[in-house]
Amino acid sequence: MNNSDKDKVILGIDPGTNVMGYGLISVKNTSPTLITLGVIHLKKYEEHSQKLLQIFHKTLSIINQYKPDEMAIEAPFYGKNIQSMLKLGRAQGVCLAAALSKNIPVFEYAPKKIKQSVTGKGTASKEQVASMLQSILKHELNEKFFDATDALAAALCHLFQNSGAGNIGIGKKKNSWDAFIKSNPGRVK
Amino acid sequence: MNNSDKDKVILGIDPGTNVMGYGLISVKNTSPTLITLGVIHLKKYEEHSQKLLQIFHKTLSIINQYKPDEMAIEAPFYGKNIQSMLKLGRAQGVCLAAALSKNIPVFEYAPKKIKQSVTGKGTASKEQVASMLQSILKHELNEKFFDATDALAAALCHLFQNSGAGNIGIGKKKNSWDAFIKSNPGRVK
Repeated sequence: MNNSDKDKVILGIDPGTNVMGYGLISVKNTSPTLITLGVIHLKKYEEHSQKLLQIFHKTLSIINQYKPDEMAIEAPFYGKNIQSMLKLGRAQGVCLAAALSKNIPVFEYAPKKIKQSVTGKGTASKEQVASMLQSILKHELNEKFFDATDALAAALCHLFQNSGAGNIGIGKKKNSWDAFIKSNPGRVK
Repeated sequence: MNNSDKDKVILGIDPGTNVMGYGLISVKNTSPTLITLGVIHLKKYEEHSQKLLQIFHKTLSIINQYKPDEMAIEAPFYGKNIQSMLKLGRAQGVCLAAALSKNIPVFEYAPKKIKQSVTGKGTASKEQVASMLQSILKHELNEKFFDATDALAAALCHLFQNSGAGNIGIGKKKNSWDAFIKSNPGRVK
């Protein structure tokens, strides 16, 4: 079946343990438009388990509402603190599982790769990323969604990796669950 | 509704990135009997994402088959290597999410707490834990299930924490998702 004439929806997620950002884009002929973006604050939940529960339910809720075709996740692979890396790993795992439970193919990108893909510079500041996002999507981003820029950038990074659009998509796809998922059709709903 | 005359099923899980162990016990009047235990080998999957996918599906499959009332997870909270802690965190997160998606209350216990609860000694060897498990469950454990002993011990630890059975239940419950889950009834299936 050829789905090339159907708009593709990409969900970008940046699952942190205190703030979770998300951004959704619709893609038609490799041209992206913003659907929505948002920030979920998790600091108010004292227990780490409650934060994980929120991440799981929010991700599922976003998937149910916007029915993305693919998910791109900003996934740092290293950090200074062992405790925080364990917590971050759990947040990532919960978020990945939410997508898996809905059979959404997931693609992971390192923060540097995302910045590089969107701005051409792996060390770009958050402001530079936000500015480039506004330019690409032709949409002014409200300051209150500042923490969702990385998620939105992850979605665009995924688009650029796969479409080869413009000069921006210079990165390389980090990880594809797609092939594996497609070769394992008997998955639970 | 009083469920006290119904056997309670507890699933213990030890989600590692190379080996995942699980054990199920049935509890009647605080007395545990072994239902089953097993080991899932994940080394054959090259990609970390494939391991996570397996952990997710296997956990869901076990839950669907045995319909546990509660899940106890062996969850180390620290380690030496940042990379392995991130991976372990992801494995834990995926496993937790599988339970959450089925509304199974999850309880976490540190390895030392589990050993202490089952053998009376937080520094007990794996052999000592296995030996005590055989004695408690009156069931000889096959060597090939050696990697499932921690998972089985987690299930028993959870029982002892809550029933106050014998002198063995000396630990303290680490974390309860139960209250939070019960106060959030509108959860996704």
